[in-house]
Amino acid sequence: MLRTTTCGALTIENLGENVILCGWVQKSRDLGGMTFIDIRDRYGITQLVFNMDDNRELCEAARSLGREFVIKASGLVVERSNKNLKMPTGEVELKITALEILNAAKLPPFMIDDETDGGDDLRMKYRYLDLRRNPVRNNMVLRHKMAQAVRRYLDNLDFIEVETPVLIKSTPEGARDFVVPSRMNEGQFYALPQSPQTFKQLLMVSGFDRYFQIVKCFRDEDLRADRQPEFTQIDCEMSFIEQEDILTTFEGLIRTLFKDIKGFDLPEVPRMQYSDAMRFYGSDKPDTRFDMRFVELTELVKGKDFPVFDNAELVIGINATGCASYTRKQLDELTDFIKRPQIGATGLIYMRHNEDGSLKSSVDKFYNEEELQKWSVALNTQPGDLVLIMAGIQDKVRKQLSELRLEMGTRLGLRDKNKYSALWVLDFPLLEWDEESARYHAMHHPFTSPKPEDIALLDTKPGEVRANAYDMVVNGTEIGGGSIRIHDRTLQALMFKHLGFSAEEAQKQFGFLMDAFEFGAPPHGGIAFGFDRLCSIFAGLDSIRDVIAFPKNNSGRDVMIDSPSTIDDKQMNELKIKSTV
Amino acid sequence: MLRTTTCGALTIENLGENVILCGWVQKSRDLGGMTFIDIRDRYGITQLVFNMDDNRELCEAARSLGREFVIKASGLVVERSNKNLKMPTGEVELKITALEILNAAKLPPFMIDDETDGGDDLRMKYRYLDLRRNPVRNNMVLRHKMAQAVRRYLDNLDFIEVETPVLIKSTPEGARDFVVPSRMNEGQFYALPQSPQTFKQLLMVSGFDRYFQIVKCFRDEDLRADRQPEFTQIDCEMSFIEQEDILTTFEGLIRTLFKDIKGFDLPEVPRMQYSDAMRFYGSDKPDTRFDMRFVELTELVKGKDFPVFDNAELVIGINATGCASYTRKQLDELTDFIKRPQIGATGLIYMRHNEDGSLKSSVDKFYNEEELQKWSVALNTQPGDLVLIMAGIQDKVRKQLSELRLEMGTRLGLRDKNKYSALWVLDFPLLEWDEESARYHAMHHPFTSPKPEDIALLDTKPGEVRANAYDMVVNGTEIGGGSIRIHDRTLQALMFKHLGFSAEEAQKQFGFLMDAFEFGAPPHGGIAFGFDRLCSIFAGLDSIRDVIAFPKNNSGRDVMIDSPSTIDDKQMNELKIKSTV
Repeated sequence: MLRTTTCGALTIENLGENVILCGWVQKSRDLGGMTFIDIRDRYGITQLVFNMDDNRELCEAARSLGREFVIKASGLVVERSNKNLKMPTGEVELKITALEILNAAKLPPFMIDDETDGGDDLRMKYRYLDLRRNPVRNNMVLRHKMAQAVRRYLDNLDFIEVETPVLIKSTPEGARDFVVPSRMNEGQFYALPQSPQTFKQLLMVSGFDRYFQIVKCFRDEDLRADRQPEFTQIDCEMSFIEQEDILTTFEGLIRTLFKDIKGFDLPEVPRMQYSDAMRFYGSDKPDTRFDMRFVELTELVKGKDFPVFDNAELVIGINATGCASYTRKQLDELTDFIKRPQIGATGLIYMRHNEDGSLKSSVDKFYNEEELQKWSVALNTQPGDLVLIMAGIQDKVRKQLSELRLEMGTRLGLRDKNKYSALWVLDFPLLEWDEESARYHAMHHPFTSPKPEDIALLDTKPGEVRANAYDMVVNGTEIGGGSIRIHDRTLQALMFKHLGFSAEEAQKQFGFLMDAFEFGAPPHGGIAFGFDRLCSIFAGLDSIRDVIAFPKNNSGRDVMIDSPSTIDDKQMNELKIKSTV
Repeated sequence: MLRTTTCGALTIENLGENVILCGWVQKSRDLGGMTFIDIRDRYGITQLVFNMDDNRELCEAARSLGREFVIKASGLVVERSNKNLKMPTGEVELKITALEILNAAKLPPFMIDDETDGGDDLRMKYRYLDLRRNPVRNNMVLRHKMAQAVRRYLDNLDFIEVETPVLIKSTPEGARDFVVPSRMNEGQFYALPQSPQTFKQLLMVSGFDRYFQIVKCFRDEDLRADRQPEFTQIDCEMSFIEQEDILTTFEGLIRTLFKDIKGFDLPEVPRMQYSDAMRFYGSDKPDTRFDMRFVELTELVKGKDFPVFDNAELVIGINATGCASYTRKQLDELTDFIKRPQIGATGLIYMRHNEDGSLKSSVDKFYNEEELQKWSVALNTQPGDLVLIMAGIQDKVRKQLSELRLEMGTRLGLRDKNKYSALWVLDFPLLEWDEESARYHAMHHPFTSPKPEDIALLDTKPGEVRANAYDMVVNGTEIGGGSIRIHDRTLQALMFKHLGFSAEEAQKQFGFLMDAFEFGAPPHGGIAFGFDRLCSIFAGLDSIRDVIAFPKNNSGRDVMIDSPSTIDDKQMNELKIKSTV
């Protein structure tokens, strides 16, 4: 080793020792005849001290060092006169006897500091410098620790990590496959997996009983939201289980992670039907750090000649506790908020429950105090509260009020990143109608089993069939989801039929799986967690990009290595493809 | 859970308990009024017993079960009269009170047994059934345990596992890249990594200090040898180290694996120069489970008018201990062996050291007893030994004799799969001449540093420059290799120049790395182990295919899912590519 210890290790215990450190020059300052240099590595920072009187040459060498120079410094551990007790090494400094420059450094394009002056683009281009900054590198350390903890937990429960293939088969269902031309099989393509779904099911058919994998998956879709073309899943599957077993096992995983990584005791995770989540929060991933449930007012408010309510399919309100004092301007902001194109509502009705007990609404023309009193009861308002009401078509208005609820949660400081609230959402619909293709799609995926009691509805009311499917939500973000799978060929074939596959298509694409079901497939189910998302929540970050070492930008580009890029004709010829650009 | 315990858990301790098991019907036999069924899961096998007298219906149901049916069986744990002490559950059986068929099974196309009647092709097509067989599934369990042990070891040493991207940039140096057309960046392609080499070096520039990753890599090359288009590496890198630190750290990893997984104390790993490995074994990955070193006889045998020796650049022999009694036929077999086209030798000379002490060679016409005596001394033969000698051009004849040495090792039973011998091979050449392209290629890769004392030779004798590169060899197989890297822009640019890159090409392809070297790159180096190969050696298998859950065949096809396959025109249009087949 070039060094005898790291820059985070020396304390008062080491006084009098001769040590060698290697690292980067964090900062340097001259004070009279002295020069102080902070040397940094992954483990910490140590102060080096040079003295003109002791060794002029050495001190001048130190003064010539630039920021981010890589150095090797030998010296004696001495006590600092001016101690910095905030740093683990802050009681000592290293009196330098020898100094070697291991590599010089150009001035970095931005400050290598917790708070940097570098913009997003610059930091992405020089990602290797951004990764030097403690908060960024700490995210990667957190991610490593989380992966290790996941593996430890699952290994203890007899789960086996199995690597499934990355070069698989393209499926029409997954329109957003990345494909890979095969040189050896001319004119044919592999696809990169959007998930190892069919392989993990085959492992259950193989009797692996409990499988997991922390695995890269790929999706070639527009990256408007916080998505990456390659992302990582904690992918799991179990045999001979029921939904309850999955919920218990993986609630255990998440609670263990919170405990081990954050030191946080996550309480038992409550469970909610999908239909209730929609009814109470207008979302299948409600943020339950705060309550502010929807209250249905439709019947209560109809028949008073207020057309907005009379014509509405659904009228719902929330109680924004303590907001009665909102100014006109604040209320206008909320109206503007819900009128933004992404939300697309037309108007907001409010009622103040004033401190003096009086009720005052924006529709006093239509509703008298007695009627407002009923609203107050329904929404359980207290003096000082503000009721916000929206009306419209059920699905739309729920979504809109959900956005407003989140906004109010933010305004009221109810969405603290250091607080955690988890929720299981259960009994998702099996199918959802897709306007564009004018047919039903699998809400989860085609391998999800319907609830046995709902199978009869498949032909008559497909939209009402519930699935044995579940999501785990933390702080309003879906961190994982799964289902009990179909393990029977006939039912699987029926599902493909309902998804618009011909029998031939289904056999061509998924014949291997349906064939496998005929050779003794056990009942099985599983779950997959978005590992990037989970890490970002644990890191208190908004974007998954910050927990990925080398992320791509919104155009799917890695601006650091300048990829993707063109390839030469020779390579295309070998692959028997041609670019049509 | 559908079951209360597994098929591997019940012992005499559980007598009198009512339990529920789930699993597959392994076999079934009727004995008078009784029926015995072996039920199997991942954890073991338990005997179920049914009695016509007790419950006719249940017993008949049991008799109707076919092989590989999936069942759920409830019953009472009772002591077996006919104990099978070879099985952990062999002292008990389950007296069945309820039986449920969870899934029927067609007759599998081959026996689900340790020894199967299925041919390779059939087993690959129904890989999910092959994976039910204990020896195959056990390979995957072994692989899981090894991966866990690797992570534990490296985590304890402060290595951080960082996921590097799978969608990267194609490089002309790596002609065998798989490429991925980008939909969002028309006409451009990602490449799949042949290794995360540049990314791990950038992580060192970022100050990660110690990185590892168990990671999929990809290479689109002909799969004649035991290769797979996707394979897994244990990829590692360290900063502020010298070669000695890498050797120590990763020798520790391999010894820990042998201890933890095989219970085997691997002795300290000896080290050998590349040049010595070639001289003594004719191979850079000698099998050191047996010695049988080459002895150079060139000077000793020249000048006796035997043209084969007189014209040879090199004459070398091995002592095949105890083989003096080889028959003419056996010797002919050896000659045939070395004449095979893969080896391409022209002839084999031998000398017997007979039990009576006499020496008899196949070239007695040219060499008298006195001369043969010198051979005997040089090769340290004893009565009963056989000397095998080959002559020719140095590089060729060494390779040929190496093959013969391995063949003799096999014939003499010196290559026991349950014995392990490891070796470090050091100081590989930096460059190797490539006849086809008529230029030097990097033997390891372009980022490997030359030995400082050899840099001066780069211009004059490039082939003689040694690299700071090392391989670990176990039982004659290279299981890993690495190098101390270049961390200086000027030297890296010089390397690219010697590899035939123009300055522009080098900057275009690897500018990001060379730029990074200017911002304070620490001295660093690393190693990568072939994880599939390592697992296959630990499993005592010849092929890596057997330690991969879903391998591809020699044409790069997955015959189970029938991939690669054609994709439709719509998808090609979106990707702006066209097939030219």
